[in-house]
Amino acid sequence: MDYPPAVEALLAKAEARIGDRVRASKAGAVYEGTVMPHHGFSGEDILTLKLDSGYNVGVAVAGTRLELLAHGAEVAHARHAPVADSSLPVVAFLGTGGTIASFVDYRTGAVHPAVTAEDLVFSVPELAAVCQPRARKLLSLYSENLKPEHWSLLAREAAAELNAGAAGVVIPHGTDTLGYSAAAVSFLLRDLPGPVVFVGSQRSSDRPSSDAALNLLCATRTALTDLGEVVAVMHEGTGDEACTIHRGTKVRKLHTSRRDAFRSVNVPPVGRATASEVVLSGARPRVKGPARLEGALDANVALVHFHPGLTAEDLAHTLQTHKGTVIAGTGLGHVAFDLVPPIRAAITEGKTVVMTSQCLYGRVDLEVYDSGRDLLAAGAVAGSDMLPETALAKLMWALGTYATPAEVRSALERDVAGEITARIGLGSAAPQRPHPDI
Amino acid sequence: MDYPPAVEALLAKAEARIGDRVRASKAGAVYEGTVMPHHGFSGEDILTLKLDSGYNVGVAVAGTRLELLAHGAEVAHARHAPVADSSLPVVAFLGTGGTIASFVDYRTGAVHPAVTAEDLVFSVPELAAVCQPRARKLLSLYSENLKPEHWSLLAREAAAELNAGAAGVVIPHGTDTLGYSAAAVSFLLRDLPGPVVFVGSQRSSDRPSSDAALNLLCATRTALTDLGEVVAVMHEGTGDEACTIHRGTKVRKLHTSRRDAFRSVNVPPVGRATASEVVLSGARPRVKGPARLEGALDANVALVHFHPGLTAEDLAHTLQTHKGTVIAGTGLGHVAFDLVPPIRAAITEGKTVVMTSQCLYGRVDLEVYDSGRDLLAAGAVAGSDMLPETALAKLMWALGTYATPAEVRSALERDVAGEITARIGLGSAAPQRPHPDI
Repeated sequence: MDYPPAVEALLAKAEARIGDRVRASKAGAVYEGTVMPHHGFSGEDILTLKLDSGYNVGVAVAGTRLELLAHGAEVAHARHAPVADSSLPVVAFLGTGGTIASFVDYRTGAVHPAVTAEDLVFSVPELAAVCQPRARKLLSLYSENLKPEHWSLLAREAAAELNAGAAGVVIPHGTDTLGYSAAAVSFLLRDLPGPVVFVGSQRSSDRPSSDAALNLLCATRTALTDLGEVVAVMHEGTGDEACTIHRGTKVRKLHTSRRDAFRSVNVPPVGRATASEVVLSGARPRVKGPARLEGALDANVALVHFHPGLTAEDLAHTLQTHKGTVIAGTGLGHVAFDLVPPIRAAITEGKTVVMTSQCLYGRVDLEVYDSGRDLLAAGAVAGSDMLPETALAKLMWALGTYATPAEVRSALERDVAGEITARIGLGSAAPQRPHPDI
Repeated sequence: MDYPPAVEALLAKAEARIGDRVRASKAGAVYEGTVMPHHGFSGEDILTLKLDSGYNVGVAVAGTRLELLAHGAEVAHARHAPVADSSLPVVAFLGTGGTIASFVDYRTGAVHPAVTAEDLVFSVPELAAVCQPRARKLLSLYSENLKPEHWSLLAREAAAELNAGAAGVVIPHGTDTLGYSAAAVSFLLRDLPGPVVFVGSQRSSDRPSSDAALNLLCATRTALTDLGEVVAVMHEGTGDEACTIHRGTKVRKLHTSRRDAFRSVNVPPVGRATASEVVLSGARPRVKGPARLEGALDANVALVHFHPGLTAEDLAHTLQTHKGTVIAGTGLGHVAFDLVPPIRAAITEGKTVVMTSQCLYGRVDLEVYDSGRDLLAAGAVAGSDMLPETALAKLMWALGTYATPAEVRSALERDVAGEITARIGLGSAAPQRPHPDI
């Protein structure tokens, strides 16, 4: 995208163009980097440079002096992707699409999907210093378009990579449904000999302040640890210091746009990663393996958020047209009393109903009020401290894996992948503290 | 409920029973109060006393010395409800049910619904020092059983009280759907000459650590301010210092059980109340009135949380059987691409679809990705930073108030009751900071 006139004039004066290497000096600060294309989110007076660190910086043109250091072609020659040391461990990257999958080519400044290991290393050169990347594109979808069958594909391919010798697996994924995918893959995978790390980016790498580079590097670091579970690695704060490692069954996107939108809900995170180190706490360690798939998914499951005005007829239709339904009730897991009869009828016919809470934080308790006791008597399963989205993935897995309602119930009530946690007692680690203004 | 043996023995030694006034001394601390009944949430060794402040305290029996001060009957005689000064302003209390509506009678220790002004003053004696309470019971329902027609009743009766001279209105309400009710009443009421204050309690007043007394007192203080809008007053933190005053259209229950479960989402609160004072910030002031109702509610509205696996057939059924649907999409307000055709078809037939985000925090933006632009092109309304629950109440109001889809859309897109806020710029007040472990 061409720059607006103010930036174009600065570039013209320096005889520089997109893709060239330049030095920008302003008020004592000096940045050297590659001129990136303009994008619609920047101001009319902002020149974007990609620094050698892989991060972008936006420079307001007023008072900025610009020098041309090298033309794009020379840059391309000089900056060929570093070759990874063949003694380093292999990390498998399984591309799915989404914001993080678009990497910027240093040579041209163009945004294109990263589908090869070379693309990855071009975009985040530090990767080559820590692993041998092995990249494959499985999907090319915005994550709102993923279906449960894609979750099965991701689980199968992640297991295959680990069993073929990868130290860990990184799955770049759109952020919209990253939490759902991480939960579903958690229920499907067993005996992991290495980490399976979902990673996303809230701002694409063609924007200043993109979180893609740090998130990808932290995810790769996490994939090289002793971890033996499915996690999501995303920005910890609004700065660029660190990422949080969230358990796949307890993570939720809680902001539409912030880089630190993801939170561990009802539990502390399982670790913290920076560009140089990873600290784990309470994570399950890797086992000998081989990784295997346990069961399958039955997508014939509904998720209903109870609200005033939801009629018994509407709920009955949903219950009757699905094998199982997760209800995000109010408070401790309640619905209006006139909705209990259709729930009882569906359960009597062999369907499964799981109660969770739309509060998100806290725990379902169906034994405090009549409303809850009626649901228990009708045969509903109490979802404990599971997120509604995690309960949806778990119910698909339970229905795809077990034959009878009793077995399905038993699977739902036991902790399978860290999704049900004991009540926090004194002296336990506190659940994750959110950042100040989320 | 009878006490377990350890507590019973202590009571027997002092010849005291439930309802009696006693003094408990232990390690230098002395409490005087009324012996309350045992309840299932307390330990086997905890004696519960109601102090003169109205708060309950739990005393572990080990090392405690107990003295009988007066029997229950004498207490009843001595502690007749104080009579409010007839020069004080009138506050109307409109009871709906829920945890906060159950007050403990000092004379007997029994829990019973507070339906008269005398009941209220018995339970929170400080009320008589600040207002003349005028109490009526409108409903006696756990809040998950409220329907949209009850929201209309609450709006009508609140307006009537204000127009009959009440300085303010307090509506004790179950916490489960308190946010929905506050939002709906916000859309229905105009030209308020005084505050309409929803208040709830996360722990009933027969439990130690009940938040009922402080919440009710803070709500009453808030009802006596210069405020001219609908708000919710709930515990600020886990202590007993203060309550937060939330705008009715921006408040959400975000924890199943904590006393500080309620949060203002995407905005700062409109004030803070303690037992002795109220500080408002950015609240709409009261006007001359009279209060009036604007429009009505049409309950034929659905709320759907998009998730992977939601089929076009399921969504089409919901869209076709309602006049309007609020969709809580992923991220910036997205759904899978195969759900756009049924949405377009419904809108073409004159139905209304509003996009919100299941992230809760942040703002819908349908112009960033193809997924959003497709929804805009199909005619969906972008819900800005409205909570999905607030958008549900607003769509019911817009459909009940305006005749054509264009008028409905116009009402949805403009700010009616503080539900749509401008983007936060530099220097603006920050949105509410949540407490550490929510």
